[in-house]
Amino acid sequence: MKFNAHQIAEILNGEIQGNAAVEVKSLAKIEEGEKGDLSFLANPKYTPYIYTSKASIVIVDKSFTADKDINATLIKVEDAYASFSQILELYNQMKFNKVGLSKKADVATSSTIGDDVFIGAFTSISEGVILEKNVKIYPNCYIGENVTIKENTILFSGVKIYHDCIVGANNIIHSGVIIGSDGFGFAANRNTNYKKISQIGNVVIDNNVEIGANSTIDRATMGSTIIGNGVKLDNLIQVAHNVEIGEHTVIAAQTGIAGSSKIGKNCMIGGQVAISGHLRIADKVKIAGQSGIASSITEVGKIVQGPMAFNIKDFQRSYIIFKKLPEIYETLNKIKKELDS
Amino acid sequence: MKFNAHQIAEILNGEIQGNAAVEVKSLAKIEEGEKGDLSFLANPKYTPYIYTSKASIVIVDKSFTADKDINATLIKVEDAYASFSQILELYNQMKFNKVGLSKKADVATSSTIGDDVFIGAFTSISEGVILEKNVKIYPNCYIGENVTIKENTILFSGVKIYHDCIVGANNIIHSGVIIGSDGFGFAANRNTNYKKISQIGNVVIDNNVEIGANSTIDRATMGSTIIGNGVKLDNLIQVAHNVEIGEHTVIAAQTGIAGSSKIGKNCMIGGQVAISGHLRIADKVKIAGQSGIASSITEVGKIVQGPMAFNIKDFQRSYIIFKKLPEIYETLNKIKKELDS
Amino acid sequence: MKFNAHQIAEILNGEIQGNAAVEVKSLAKIEEGEKGDLSFLANPKYTPYIYTSKASIVIVDKSFTADKDINATLIKVEDAYASFSQILELYNQMKFNKVGLSKKADVATSSTIGDDVFIGAFTSISEGVILEKNVKIYPNCYIGENVTIKENTILFSGVKIYHDCIVGANNIIHSGVIIGSDGFGFAANRNTNYKKISQIGNVVIDNNVEIGANSTIDRATMGSTIIGNGVKLDNLIQVAHNVEIGEHTVIAAQTGIAGSSKIGKNCMIGGQVAISGHLRIADKVKIAGQSGIASSITEVGKIVQGPMAFNIKDFQRSYIIFKKLPEIYETLNKIKKELDS
Repeated sequence: MKFNAHQIAEILNGEIQGNAAVEVKSLAKIEEGEKGDLSFLANPKYTPYIYTSKASIVIVDKSFTADKDINATLIKVEDAYASFSQILELYNQMKFNKVGLSKKADVATSSTIGDDVFIGAFTSISEGVILEKNVKIYPNCYIGENVTIKENTILFSGVKIYHDCIVGANNIIHSGVIIGSDGFGFAANRNTNYKKISQIGNVVIDNNVEIGANSTIDRATMGSTIIGNGVKLDNLIQVAHNVEIGEHTVIAAQTGIAGSSKIGKNCMIGGQVAISGHLRIADKVKIAGQSGIASSITEVGKIVQGPMAFNIKDFQRSYIIFKKLPEIYETLNKIKKELDS
Repeated sequence: MKFNAHQIAEILNGEIQGNAAVEVKSLAKIEEGEKGDLSFLANPKYTPYIYTSKASIVIVDKSFTADKDINATLIKVEDAYASFSQILELYNQMKFNKVGLSKKADVATSSTIGDDVFIGAFTSISEGVILEKNVKIYPNCYIGENVTIKENTILFSGVKIYHDCIVGANNIIHSGVIIGSDGFGFAANRNTNYKKISQIGNVVIDNNVEIGANSTIDRATMGSTIIGNGVKLDNLIQVAHNVEIGEHTVIAAQTGIAGSSKIGKNCMIGGQVAISGHLRIADKVKIAGQSGIASSITEVGKIVQGPMAFNIKDFQRSYIIFKKLPEIYETLNKIKKELDS
Repeated sequence: MKFNAHQIAEILNGEIQGNAAVEVKSLAKIEEGEKGDLSFLANPKYTPYIYTSKASIVIVDKSFTADKDINATLIKVEDAYASFSQILELYNQMKFNKVGLSKKADVATSSTIGDDVFIGAFTSISEGVILEKNVKIYPNCYIGENVTIKENTILFSGVKIYHDCIVGANNIIHSGVIIGSDGFGFAANRNTNYKKISQIGNVVIDNNVEIGANSTIDRATMGSTIIGNGVKLDNLIQVAHNVEIGEHTVIAAQTGIAGSSKIGKNCMIGGQVAISGHLRIADKVKIAGQSGIASSITEVGKIVQGPMAFNIKDFQRSYIIFKKLPEIYETLNKIKKELDS
């Protein structure tokens, strides 16, 4: 896809300064811009780059005036950053706007396929699946029986969704994500071996959720594992059976949440955090990376850190002294000796 | 699949109280039961729900007598929980009882396919593969050359098994699991770059094993990485080359075991645990979540926690004092000053 | 593939002692060797096994002389270990030397396919993809638009590469690896919900890189996420957007590197390490497993450990005292009481 400065200025309602016919085909940072790139200048810190950048077009604020020669065609707008974001969104809409069913897909006759759906090669759509309008499913996905996927949701290549799960609208599910695999439930037989407990619930994901590559979300034993509206999960995250994550909570990579824990709304959870099973985490709680949560957090907005995490400032104060432990131990032993003698 | 109360009562040898013709098509907890659901009442704590539940059929103990009106058809049995579990198993047997080879699969002519095998679309079965009777392989799996999979094992969508590996009977392997990828072995050349050490062993998995979504099990450098009978692995677990895991050991999500470590039988290992390479872990050892195991554990049944984990009670006692370190440090400094003056 | 002792001796320029016609079809450790296996004896510690091994052929050093009867045919060479490695490499070259495009693949007409390329069944090659000579792509991979993969690189089954990424020569990418998924970037709207920041950069991987099963490497927001020449990544590793990893750095399984951090050359990073965002790690730094890196490390060759890691020896000294904290606390309280009275 190529666009010229004239076309872009029209979309942005901007004013061209330079060659209106110059074309761009990709987007770049101003300091890395090459011929054929569209860039922007929003932060004054980057102003020097506008004189050296090889980008073909640069979007700038109306207020910008050059004090040296500039190679690029400029497009002057009210808010350069907002305008660039607008172009970005258009770019993505065009990039991910595939429509049609690949002849190399396997689509069950009893499935319901909405308007403007895309199904890539080597993707299986099982019996009873409902894909609402504008759903995009890339190659090599598997959609199990009776799954529903609501409008505008994108599944990138290699997503696997087990039977009976529900995925909301406007979701972005990245490659390798597994939704609805069995929860990890076993009953011990006289403590030496284990019998599987059938996992017959499902996963229900609300709207506007994004899930990062290779994350796994297990189905509930009974009932549903629930991911709330607007939740953002990074890569390689584990969500166990019957977990519930409240709306607009964000979780960084490689964190794991054990069975039946309920996470509040608007929480921020760092990477590699472990949350034990059957806990409640209040709304707006923040958890530092690599922390271990072994008991419920009932205080809204609490910030915690550490293994068996507690208040983050207290943890860090203790950790500073932890570094002095050898010295403390020596001092204490000296004092003891002194007192003993 | 729909069943009526009469059919279910026959299977369970139970007694119907209510409409024998009422039909169910799914299973639910009593407190969440809707029309068309089959539920059960086993724990007296949940008795109040039987009067409000919308489930169409509820399995109850023989001894149960209602003291208010109940909408549902009841099926009275000796042991409601055991009967419900029996129905669950039947349900799963029917659900996962697919048979036949998809025309969209790629099955090598030199492979051996047993009776009642299912192979889904877009699955590759390479040369020399043996699939014993009743093996079920969902879409988008890859079975490398000379792999053997024994009877009744299920591979969900997207499992990849490299050449020469052996998977036992009655296994359940979840989506995205990788078996037999190369171990992480490199020889340093004058300490500045690395030469790959060929990984020519395999993975051997015994019977009755379950492996969670997106877990990875590397092939041995030489010999075999071994997963014992009845082992249960959760999601996103890493098992490195030449590891051995003893029978009936269970491991929670995101744990990693480094090369050549041997884990005993009947161990219970929490989530996000890291076990260093070349260690021995005795039988029945329990390891708390997020612990780091840096040396062998020789005591049978030992319970440990912490980074460079030690006895769990000792760790927790130390950790309580860790939280008091700032206060301790202050006290100590006061005492020191006092003594100095 | 079967070879006899005569053929192997010719390749290795070795001298046969025993039956030159005996055939082998697999490789094994000397202590586990069975009929049909080729083995080697390099470490004198293993000498006793040569008299009991059932391997058909054993490669030994020229200097080796038997003092008992040996069943195996021996091949005497200058350096038994080097010769065995040579055979291993040949074996792998033959094993992974598939050529040709499967009729069950989906290859876009605008893609460019070099000589001796292999493309397996159910793999998608999108528009504008360039595969250089001798690239091997196993079944069920997805190569997005305009991706370039340079010569001799192997992608095992199930690798997914998003559009515009560049993969260097001589790479080995294991099953389930995701390259180029969106970075985890969101802008908070009045702190209650999040708007996606489009991720329009890519991933650039240099030559001689190996990436373990199910690892994920996110594309840059703008610019590139960069993996340097000779980098070795183990399984289930997370590399976030705009990260750069310097050449010949090796990283063990389940480690995560947050956005925009730059890792130096020749670093060694253990498993389950977490590195926060926007940090710089100097060359040759070593980080112990499960450590958390919360600030930049500027000292070349520094070795660190711990949550908010510091010098490894200091950490371990403190940790020894950590184990004595209950005792220290008691002593301190006694002293305090004594002084108070």
